[in-house]
Amino acid sequence: MLDIFYHPKGVAVLGATMKPRGGLFLFRNVMEGYRGKLYPVNPQYEEILGVKCYPNIASIPENFDLVLYFIPAKFLPDTIRECAKKGVKGIIIESAGFSETGSQGRALQEESVRIAREHGIRLWGPNCMGLLDGHSRHVFSFMYQDNWKELMKPGGVSLIVQSGMLSAGFLMAILQRGGMGISKVASIGNKCDVDETELLEYFVNDANTTVIAAYLESIKDGRNFLELARGTSKPVIVLKAGRSPQGAKAAMSHTASLSGEAEVYAGAFRQAGIVQVYDINELMDLARGFSKTETCSVNGGTAILTFSGGAGIVTTDLLHDYGMKLAELGKATIAEVKQVFPEWMDPTHPLDLWPACEKNGVEKVYAHTVEAVMKDPAVDSVIVETLSSPRTGTDYLVQIAALKKKYGKPVALWLMGIGPREDQEKARNIAEDSGLPEFSELGRCVSFISGVREHYRKKRDLGLTV
Amino acid sequence: MLDIFYHPKGVAVLGATMKPRGGLFLFRNVMEGYRGKLYPVNPQYEEILGVKCYPNIASIPENFDLVLYFIPAKFLPDTIRECAKKGVKGIIIESAGFSETGSQGRALQEESVRIAREHGIRLWGPNCMGLLDGHSRHVFSFMYQDNWKELMKPGGVSLIVQSGMLSAGFLMAILQRGGMGISKVASIGNKCDVDETELLEYFVNDANTTVIAAYLESIKDGRNFLELARGTSKPVIVLKAGRSPQGAKAAMSHTASLSGEAEVYAGAFRQAGIVQVYDINELMDLARGFSKTETCSVNGGTAILTFSGGAGIVTTDLLHDYGMKLAELGKATIAEVKQVFPEWMDPTHPLDLWPACEKNGVEKVYAHTVEAVMKDPAVDSVIVETLSSPRTGTDYLVQIAALKKKYGKPVALWLMGIGPREDQEKARNIAEDSGLPEFSELGRCVSFISGVREHYRKKRDLGLTV
Repeated sequence: MLDIFYHPKGVAVLGATMKPRGGLFLFRNVMEGYRGKLYPVNPQYEEILGVKCYPNIASIPENFDLVLYFIPAKFLPDTIRECAKKGVKGIIIESAGFSETGSQGRALQEESVRIAREHGIRLWGPNCMGLLDGHSRHVFSFMYQDNWKELMKPGGVSLIVQSGMLSAGFLMAILQRGGMGISKVASIGNKCDVDETELLEYFVNDANTTVIAAYLESIKDGRNFLELARGTSKPVIVLKAGRSPQGAKAAMSHTASLSGEAEVYAGAFRQAGIVQVYDINELMDLARGFSKTETCSVNGGTAILTFSGGAGIVTTDLLHDYGMKLAELGKATIAEVKQVFPEWMDPTHPLDLWPACEKNGVEKVYAHTVEAVMKDPAVDSVIVETLSSPRTGTDYLVQIAALKKKYGKPVALWLMGIGPREDQEKARNIAEDSGLPEFSELGRCVSFISGVREHYRKKRDLGLTV
Repeated sequence: MLDIFYHPKGVAVLGATMKPRGGLFLFRNVMEGYRGKLYPVNPQYEEILGVKCYPNIASIPENFDLVLYFIPAKFLPDTIRECAKKGVKGIIIESAGFSETGSQGRALQEESVRIAREHGIRLWGPNCMGLLDGHSRHVFSFMYQDNWKELMKPGGVSLIVQSGMLSAGFLMAILQRGGMGISKVASIGNKCDVDETELLEYFVNDANTTVIAAYLESIKDGRNFLELARGTSKPVIVLKAGRSPQGAKAAMSHTASLSGEAEVYAGAFRQAGIVQVYDINELMDLARGFSKTETCSVNGGTAILTFSGGAGIVTTDLLHDYGMKLAELGKATIAEVKQVFPEWMDPTHPLDLWPACEKNGVEKVYAHTVEAVMKDPAVDSVIVETLSSPRTGTDYLVQIAALKKKYGKPVALWLMGIGPREDQEKARNIAEDSGLPEFSELGRCVSFISGVREHYRKKRDLGLTV
């Protein structure tokens, strides 16, 4: 059903313009990736960017699927009626001025929904940034940055975002860091018709989507949302905003959302196997991490490999805070690790590899030790804390990524750069491209591994994984 | 007393070498900043890097204060005896091979302490990275990176670090980000003599030090440590590692430290006004933030200014998690903020400034709104969430920094870059240099403001601030 938004046959852009504002950005973005028929609509122009422009919808010669609405709110009801005559199936309303502005706007929004329903037209938004598709490169959004053309890579992460900025500027800032491929992004705004639950269902069934992450201020059809999350083997990560009384009040004025009780949500999420997060970077970090993670047996503990005894201990404490534990490494594992250790040092867990690295080099020691712990049945996940320096290569990161796949055990990488920043970024990109998610803080490595273990435990209990 | 380590008259470097290893890095680092008499000691060389080299300590013609020890552990007892004849007052032992390696090493360490005490010689370490001083630029550490020369700026942050890597590589990685000036860094290793408590006292009385941050696996003289922290108006931020049972066990094998009970430490820290943190980036972030923070009245709530309604709500939820609340903005404040808002929008808190920015520009709106909330007596702290883009200047960041000083209210800045990364870094550097601490995540802004409010509340209750 939502294919009409992501794969429309014919798109009209209401409010397309040559002036440097939203209507131009929107039209330019659509032009960049959309290969179907395109109809800018604006009575002031004969053409826009070389495309024939129409004074109104009625004058468009053919029927078409989708309207991108970027003119003042008050014209929406009449626009819907015009659209009905052209066989339009959906309208993405990116303009503001609806329920988020008070009772008058709410009435306008409700009237619009009523008229659209009469004509069988689906509404998306209003007060939103539209959608992006990393595979088709359809970008139906008025965001003014052009950098998406370079930054948006196809991948498995789909996002449902009830906040314009988070689905545009913030998303681009996150993509700039690299390592996350996008399937579909939905900025849902006031979600007067299409909502998070319908999108969740769409993404659950979308072949390109492997991970679903959502920023939500409210969940309208909670029961179905939870059922869908529970029934899919895909990870569903949710940042529920408005958990606190003051946050809930703020959500009310942001997208007119009734946020509900924090504890109720937390409990329901847990039962549905939803991974709950609490910060916006955490949401994106976990989405990226999950997109590089195939499985987790959840029948052991976490192994920690580090170049810093201190970092290893802090990570161990954080594991404890998250209710996890260090794996109890077997004797064979310890013996194998010992092969690269200096004579005077016996391996203890967390594995402080620095003296071994001084003797045998970072690359050899890490690759050897990761394989040793991966082979250990008591290990179900691995945190690798390593460093990039002008003296350290990156082949071992690719090897570790291969070991991760071979043994089916998730890895979180923490990569401290002690040389030029370019070296660190190169190393990080190589790691991410090979399939190792890297996180900038130890706590985030732990939050990620915790989320992965939660997800796979729940899905195993529900019989959704082998 | 510890001046003999930070400001010694004459320094001998045992184990200085021309080979590319620790002994060379150590000597080069000392040469770079130390302007007193310098004596490399190694029987294999006539001179090292143009400095006359001595075969042993006995052959050094004058008396001198400090020895940097970087030869195998077993020579330490004899070295101490030789040092006594040259009036040496302190030895920084950077070599490993002592109590961290087992009973034999422990016996060697204990014997060394005994002999040193007999001769009135102070020992620092062993198994450590020595010290750094951001003002004198004394770097008595074998860390092999040269980038400290460029990265280490003088400032107010002093660090006590019971982990070599965290006082060297990790510190440099943090300094690379910019914004943190260093007073003194102490890597204390096995702390057989000089320990965190004596260093805390030294830093409390050090004119250059305004903030003290510590990574500790154990606290030997807990009562005095807590008394010192309680008695100073300087913020003391502590990451206590080994909080969990498994973490405590790991700390035992890292620096032979008995970590003790997590709850006991947490309670004692709270009573002493110590700000406790849980991750190593958090430690450095809060140290940097505190170094740019002069005061906090702690008699109101926190104001949030944002360009993203979603980010504002998430921040509000996180404030709640930390036991804080949004300030109740006065009517006059709301009226003043309203001046830059579009007609259709009434300000609600958190203040979503995006529509106002579209109307009046980011710079004007933020500067105006920050001053409005700063003037409000119900506001004791401010979180500013802003963005850098090719279309946004940076003057307003400098203005906000000036307002922060004028009104004496701490600010945490979150700066999302939506343009080229260079622009974002430029904006961040300008903010940091003006005195606005910037944090990469919303949660860290909240953790910082929470720490600041805790600190100033406690110090006010103790009568240590006006």
